[in-house]
Amino acid sequence: MATILILGAGVMGTALAVPASDNGHRVLLAGTPLDAVPVARMKAGGIHPKLGAPLAGTVTILTDEELGPEHAEAADLIVVGVSSPGIVWAVDRLNGLLGREKPVAFVTKGLDREGDRVVTYAETLPPRIAGMQSFIGIGGPCIARELAERYPTSSIYASCDRVAADFAAGLMRTPYYRLASSEDVTGVEACAALKNFFAIGVSTMQTRYPDRLRADGQSKNPTAAAFNQAAQEMALLCERIGGSRASAFDLAGIGDLHVTVGGGRNSRLGHGLGLGRTVSDVMSGELAGETVEGIDTARIVGSLLRQIENAETRLPLATAITSAVMDGGTLAFDFDRI
Amino acid sequence: MATILILGAGVMGTALAVPASDNGHRVLLAGTPLDAVPVARMKAGGIHPKLGAPLAGTVTILTDEELGPEHAEAADLIVVGVSSPGIVWAVDRLNGLLGREKPVAFVTKGLDREGDRVVTYAETLPPRIAGMQSFIGIGGPCIARELAERYPTSSIYASCDRVAADFAAGLMRTPYYRLASSEDVTGVEACAALKNFFAIGVSTMQTRYPDRLRADGQSKNPTAAAFNQAAQEMALLCERIGGSRASAFDLAGIGDLHVTVGGGRNSRLGHGLGLGRTVSDVMSGELAGETVEGIDTARIVGSLLRQIENAETRLPLATAITSAVMDGGTLAFDFDRI
Repeated sequence: MATILILGAGVMGTALAVPASDNGHRVLLAGTPLDAVPVARMKAGGIHPKLGAPLAGTVTILTDEELGPEHAEAADLIVVGVSSPGIVWAVDRLNGLLGREKPVAFVTKGLDREGDRVVTYAETLPPRIAGMQSFIGIGGPCIARELAERYPTSSIYASCDRVAADFAAGLMRTPYYRLASSEDVTGVEACAALKNFFAIGVSTMQTRYPDRLRADGQSKNPTAAAFNQAAQEMALLCERIGGSRASAFDLAGIGDLHVTVGGGRNSRLGHGLGLGRTVSDVMSGELAGETVEGIDTARIVGSLLRQIENAETRLPLATAITSAVMDGGTLAFDFDRI
Repeated sequence: MATILILGAGVMGTALAVPASDNGHRVLLAGTPLDAVPVARMKAGGIHPKLGAPLAGTVTILTDEELGPEHAEAADLIVVGVSSPGIVWAVDRLNGLLGREKPVAFVTKGLDREGDRVVTYAETLPPRIAGMQSFIGIGGPCIARELAERYPTSSIYASCDRVAADFAAGLMRTPYYRLASSEDVTGVEACAALKNFFAIGVSTMQTRYPDRLRADGQSKNPTAAAFNQAAQEMALLCERIGGSRASAFDLAGIGDLHVTVGGGRNSRLGHGLGLGRTVSDVMSGELAGETVEGIDTARIVGSLLRQIENAETRLPLATAITSAVMDGGTLAFDFDRI
């Protein structure tokens, strides 16, 4: 039995407590200041408001105030389960908590600029967190609610320290939470961010070309064409960021893109764009106040595209998504560009 | 303006007449003996019974009896649009028709055994057809009805004679029918057959793990995990058959798998299996008398698996689909095998 400290009691952090506790580990689940409602409810024995399944009684729920260095000290593995706006909190807390070196696994994803380069959390976080033994990135197709309800789910744990990736995957793997490991941490991190971005474009095709003869109202050829185009462009961008093309064609790339298209906020933005609406209109309408991670990624991808020769020809889908986000306009992607 | 002869007036052959005639080519569309009903209807100016769009008036419809060597002689490109049961007819007619060498593009897909080897039509058809200048394989995500209605569609034309592939793609490409070309004809042919097989397994997951909170009633993590697993196994089998892994991660592989899951007969078989039914039960029930191409492919894949060391561990999804088809039983795939 190990001790696993999870930072963030949002849907993903809380969902990860399920396989961890099913494996018999001691689980400490610590909420951010924004998790006050779910933390209070779970402390009272209730269910996370956005998840359908209760946690095991062996999971200890902690508020931000209760979380202390003794919890990090006891942990064999720390998992950061916050979404991207929570990463500042997580880095700050880790710096205050970590007395000696621990492996830390991150579900949180994001791209950033470092001078001319586009970099992932695998590059930016290690220098910012003293006491992190190894950085492990978690990617792959995982809707938190489904994991919490123990639907079969595949993910990939990546670290340039393969032993650390295998150690973390070994603690978390269950019969329903199937885990691969990889050394291509930059590639897994890049794809995990890029899939949100490309899901906007692929989801656009689901509503742009309706088919009244289908139960779901969607034609299938345009979406499949866009899915394949997204996979090819993701592989090219992943390589540019320093990862391996192979990661784009595996769990963190095509696997996660598959699940992200048709569900979630990136996809809802795409569905609006497919109806001819603008990014500004959708973001000030039904998505007002929501974090759409593909939008932040689009801004970074824009700077990457400017460095790639003939980007408009080689990456027409990425170019169209980026332009729509930058202008707040419509998604002007035409299939004759591919 | 070129002349394009299409053999087979089923849904796919007829749909291909749409981009061909939109490009201003003279199109000769010849039905097999089984196409008597759609041929009669289209000759009378009507619409193919399974397609929603009329053909251009410039398309000449021919019965099997009317088709003669003069039509092959006039053709710059011949396209074989029959489904797999029609390939014997097409080969027979080509041998009777071809006076001088012509490029022939095939939509028809199938795997076969040659001694110990598993081979595609790219290997078996050229020696059987005198007068075929070059064999071109057509792959990619293309539902015929959607192509006929000019929904954006991507496909790939492959030939070891790249000039021939580019020539054929050049004649057929339109603003809505987007065509790539490839020299990996064995890989494209292998994937185009394998995708039907794997679609059975991926579609099984759509009904096996229902989610009442979704509009379509389907959970998403298991299907995405199976889709990714299918892509990896398809790449391995494609390589074994003599193709390139890259073809599995492009239009003929993941692109076509995407469109095949959730629509068509292979998928309907999978949906039945997901409900715990047997292959025999579904095939003698709602699919009685129908050609489910993934079933024929499964028999060939079975012989391939027997040649691969640790196939059960390395190819658990292919193993499970093959076993179900061989026994006529249920699909016993458990995620803890991946």
